[in-house]
Amino acid sequence: MTTYTPPVKDMSFVINDVLNIHKYSNLPGFADATAETIEAILEEGGKLASEVLHPLNKVGDREGCKRHDDGSVTTPTGFKDAYNQFREGGWNGIAFDPDYGGQGLPFVIAMALNEMISGANMAFGMYPGLAAGAANALHAHGSEELKRRYLPKMISGEWGGTMNLTEPHCGTDLGLLRAKAAPQGDGSYKISGQKIWISAGEHDLVENIIHLVLARIEGAPEGVKGISLFVVPKYFVGDDGSLGERNAVQCGGLEEKMGIHGNATCVMNYDEATGWLVGEENRGLNAMFVMMNEARLGVAVQGLAISEVSYQNAATYANERLQGRSLTGTKAPEKPADPIIVHPDVRRMLLEQRATIEGGRAWMLWAALQADLHAKSEDDETRRKADDILGLMTPALKAYLTDRGFWHASTALQVLGGSGYTQEWGMEQFVRDARIAMIYEGANGIQALDLVGRKLPREGGRAIQAYFGELDEFIADHAGADAELKPYIDGLVSAKADLVDATQWLMQNAFANPDNAGASSVDYLTLFSLTCLAHGWAQLARAAIAARGEGGDKSFFENKLITGRIFLERILPDAKSSLLKLKSGAEPLMAMKAEAFMAS
Amino acid sequence: MTTYTPPVKDMSFVINDVLNIHKYSNLPGFADATAETIEAILEEGGKLASEVLHPLNKVGDREGCKRHDDGSVTTPTGFKDAYNQFREGGWNGIAFDPDYGGQGLPFVIAMALNEMISGANMAFGMYPGLAAGAANALHAHGSEELKRRYLPKMISGEWGGTMNLTEPHCGTDLGLLRAKAAPQGDGSYKISGQKIWISAGEHDLVENIIHLVLARIEGAPEGVKGISLFVVPKYFVGDDGSLGERNAVQCGGLEEKMGIHGNATCVMNYDEATGWLVGEENRGLNAMFVMMNEARLGVAVQGLAISEVSYQNAATYANERLQGRSLTGTKAPEKPADPIIVHPDVRRMLLEQRATIEGGRAWMLWAALQADLHAKSEDDETRRKADDILGLMTPALKAYLTDRGFWHASTALQVLGGSGYTQEWGMEQFVRDARIAMIYEGANGIQALDLVGRKLPREGGRAIQAYFGELDEFIADHAGADAELKPYIDGLVSAKADLVDATQWLMQNAFANPDNAGASSVDYLTLFSLTCLAHGWAQLARAAIAARGEGGDKSFFENKLITGRIFLERILPDAKSSLLKLKSGAEPLMAMKAEAFMAS
Repeated sequence: MTTYTPPVKDMSFVINDVLNIHKYSNLPGFADATAETIEAILEEGGKLASEVLHPLNKVGDREGCKRHDDGSVTTPTGFKDAYNQFREGGWNGIAFDPDYGGQGLPFVIAMALNEMISGANMAFGMYPGLAAGAANALHAHGSEELKRRYLPKMISGEWGGTMNLTEPHCGTDLGLLRAKAAPQGDGSYKISGQKIWISAGEHDLVENIIHLVLARIEGAPEGVKGISLFVVPKYFVGDDGSLGERNAVQCGGLEEKMGIHGNATCVMNYDEATGWLVGEENRGLNAMFVMMNEARLGVAVQGLAISEVSYQNAATYANERLQGRSLTGTKAPEKPADPIIVHPDVRRMLLEQRATIEGGRAWMLWAALQADLHAKSEDDETRRKADDILGLMTPALKAYLTDRGFWHASTALQVLGGSGYTQEWGMEQFVRDARIAMIYEGANGIQALDLVGRKLPREGGRAIQAYFGELDEFIADHAGADAELKPYIDGLVSAKADLVDATQWLMQNAFANPDNAGASSVDYLTLFSLTCLAHGWAQLARAAIAARGEGGDKSFFENKLITGRIFLERILPDAKSSLLKLKSGAEPLMAMKAEAFMAS
Repeated sequence: MTTYTPPVKDMSFVINDVLNIHKYSNLPGFADATAETIEAILEEGGKLASEVLHPLNKVGDREGCKRHDDGSVTTPTGFKDAYNQFREGGWNGIAFDPDYGGQGLPFVIAMALNEMISGANMAFGMYPGLAAGAANALHAHGSEELKRRYLPKMISGEWGGTMNLTEPHCGTDLGLLRAKAAPQGDGSYKISGQKIWISAGEHDLVENIIHLVLARIEGAPEGVKGISLFVVPKYFVGDDGSLGERNAVQCGGLEEKMGIHGNATCVMNYDEATGWLVGEENRGLNAMFVMMNEARLGVAVQGLAISEVSYQNAATYANERLQGRSLTGTKAPEKPADPIIVHPDVRRMLLEQRATIEGGRAWMLWAALQADLHAKSEDDETRRKADDILGLMTPALKAYLTDRGFWHASTALQVLGGSGYTQEWGMEQFVRDARIAMIYEGANGIQALDLVGRKLPREGGRAIQAYFGELDEFIADHAGADAELKPYIDGLVSAKADLVDATQWLMQNAFANPDNAGASSVDYLTLFSLTCLAHGWAQLARAAIAARGEGGDKSFFENKLITGRIFLERILPDAKSSLLKLKSGAEPLMAMKAEAFMAS
């Protein structure tokens, strides 16, 4: 019953007008990305998303994946055909290095496409998404030999990929990891151990699956400094690229989950499977971080994507469902009742979602542009700064957008009332699917710790200072903003001041007692994210005002500014309460004995 | 995998020490409720909840209910045996009028028991819960003849009961209702029409089901002023109480839902079924409101109950799961990692839940005491004031506690990370079950409208003035509070001032433009609820400080005060942002054209 309309116009507006990526045409691949090309790519990708992938979203939820006695896994009806279309369209390699078969277009465009695929069918999108993440890790850390052997077919979509971190007793704390790697003297290793919650670990969409696996080489140090990364193909690959024998890796079972039933979440058993080292011995976490950061951005996109699709369906329902009359008098006298969109609180639910979606999309694509700058700029300082800022943004994008994604899916369900709660309408699937994004690739609390404990203090706070510098420059550039733009600049100034205050509080208190960092981490992340959204909205508003003046689609830009006001008046006020909560610190949280938390 | 520990100690503390219900021993039934009796009842009811009902919670979710071709419905394995134990214990009539077989104990105690049943097994609790609601409506509005015929066996639990409001085209807007009632000239009516989402509409736990049905008598006015209420038994009941023939009412189908699979949500088809009028013609909504208000309190309790059970299981997990080390140094050197309860953010997640649960329980039971005062006081003024205040509290309790219930279930799931997302652990069921409570018995947005549009302005604001008077009296009584109690009084003073401000804003703006009431309703409800929680916490803190001084279980009271600080420092700050958002009013929400909400 649900539909998905690709937000092509909004994405084009952000990419062309807000980010103005044509300024960067000196970067490799950017010159090819004209406004027309971008729109054509988004249109084409959007068509695949809405017409091929979205109709399978409910099928995937209902059928789920099936594991057979031989360990093989079948995806839901229609997934394989859809995947073939996805592969044939070359969508997996859109932003990948042309040396290995990619198209080398800006990562910004890949992120926008990714949003459409995840919005249309999140469970489906994870199959190519994991392959892309594995390919990026191999690209960054693998030897040229490994890259040549595996990357082209991963990029073409002929092969899949996975990341294998979690074991039954260790998820967040990888130092406890037990999987073993025994060197064979020929450069290969025998990998043994059990990995759990491996998304897309085994399935029937591709000929081969390239697993990236964390394991401990015999004799390696304990803890995180003794972990290495290995590539373990499902089928061995000959020097000519042909598939050989089956490796000793098997799917031992599928997890029964709350949602994303269309994706196979596997228990993977490695029983002396042959693997090859990626990067250096005992530096596996370092290599895996490339994949995790990439994956975190992918999960952030899922949060945004589910927000969008659930918003769209709630908005349609609100325009169609007749129930009650407007408080200010009948609006549709020819009908037995007014559509519920006449009610301010229904609009509130919708507009609060939309304000975060549109601001979030501007924020996310701005961050994606930093990834492009980091990867492609010829200027060291630009590259370094972009990497610093992207590092800071990644945990916030992941945690904030997925928290909101779940909340938005739930609010969209609420717009439908009882219908939202029934399986028939499809809204409750969005809630169940969205929930995992708050957990995987590092639970959102871990993202907050990553932000305050790792990204903030690194290099004496270089990244946050760089970001504050960006904001100050933006604010200074708009000091004389007119009455229409001024509230956005004021909102940004206020949020930034709160964030500076919070950052100083952290510096003063977290060193004395590290628990203060943990205690305030989530509030800090919220305040940080609201500041980023305020920045995003100020950029959106500026571009909308400018574009409207040039006589485009006036109502599109007017609606953008209405939505922006909702952000300023109904979402940004949470910045102040986040700051207050943050300053309450660790003491009250740590006062109670651990056992007193339990019921007695 | 989940467990349920009845919070008997906390309930006893609220009932005996905070509310001090022994002050009311002049009310009928209260003299019997000594502290010992209360504890014995709660212990016994808690045993049923934890040992009989909770083990069936997951079974109910997995199996769901089954409808057979003859329209009969089978509940999940074990539900019938459990129901028989529930019935034999006489739990359904604990607070009901002794004239019809009830025990006449305080409603406060029934509410506490209700929390335990809903916490242990929400889907199960709805079967007797709906019967109790139907019995209350019949008790309030039915003729003596109807009451004698139906009430005793509904109260004994031999028969069930339902409420039939919703039709496919009308849920919130009952004015559109189409079910018909044709008078037969003998005092009976033939009822025809389809009702949907009828909880416990058909099942195998009881011999007979007494349906309360809204329908339109032929020739009645259109809209809500032409709706009457009827009692329609599944089996006719002879004058001697014996069961006769089957009435023409059938379950036409079961709804497939996100959760509460253990409860049968029925499509009910009335095909010239015989019914009898309850109360006056065309005054059916009035009669049904008794049931709805009762039911809304029951749903509020579900929110609290799911908060409690999900908190408990998350707290246990956090004490057992070993992962990572404390930021301030190893706490469990003998183990491979520290339990995750050492992390401030894990504690934050747990304590924020707990602070709302404990404050919410004090608030809810205080409201239940108003119901007792309304029903039983001999003083007109006391009765009227109690009814006013309960009317004000009901929508806020319903909306706030169910919003939080869902949020808490989700946060508790988060504490378990990936395990929380798998079906095996049982946490995700709490999320799915909790979600419906935000919708049924009036979606939470409707509750907010009820609060600002109906309860606030009624009788010139008599109810809110009475409540402000209560708060002022409490604040004056504690003007000289010591350093330990003072922050709670200060918090209450501040929240109340914000609420007064918001109330004045509403008075000034909602009359000029009713959309301002709708626009600010949810923020008003949030601010109102935070004020009620601040009141609850001030009462809890006062009682804890006093009881601790008397040398009881010191750590119980100390932990209460630690939890209270979390409320003051991490939850109450949202009052200010609610006030800010509220004042943004209707204008930005109404600015966009309806069709512009839809994707294009």
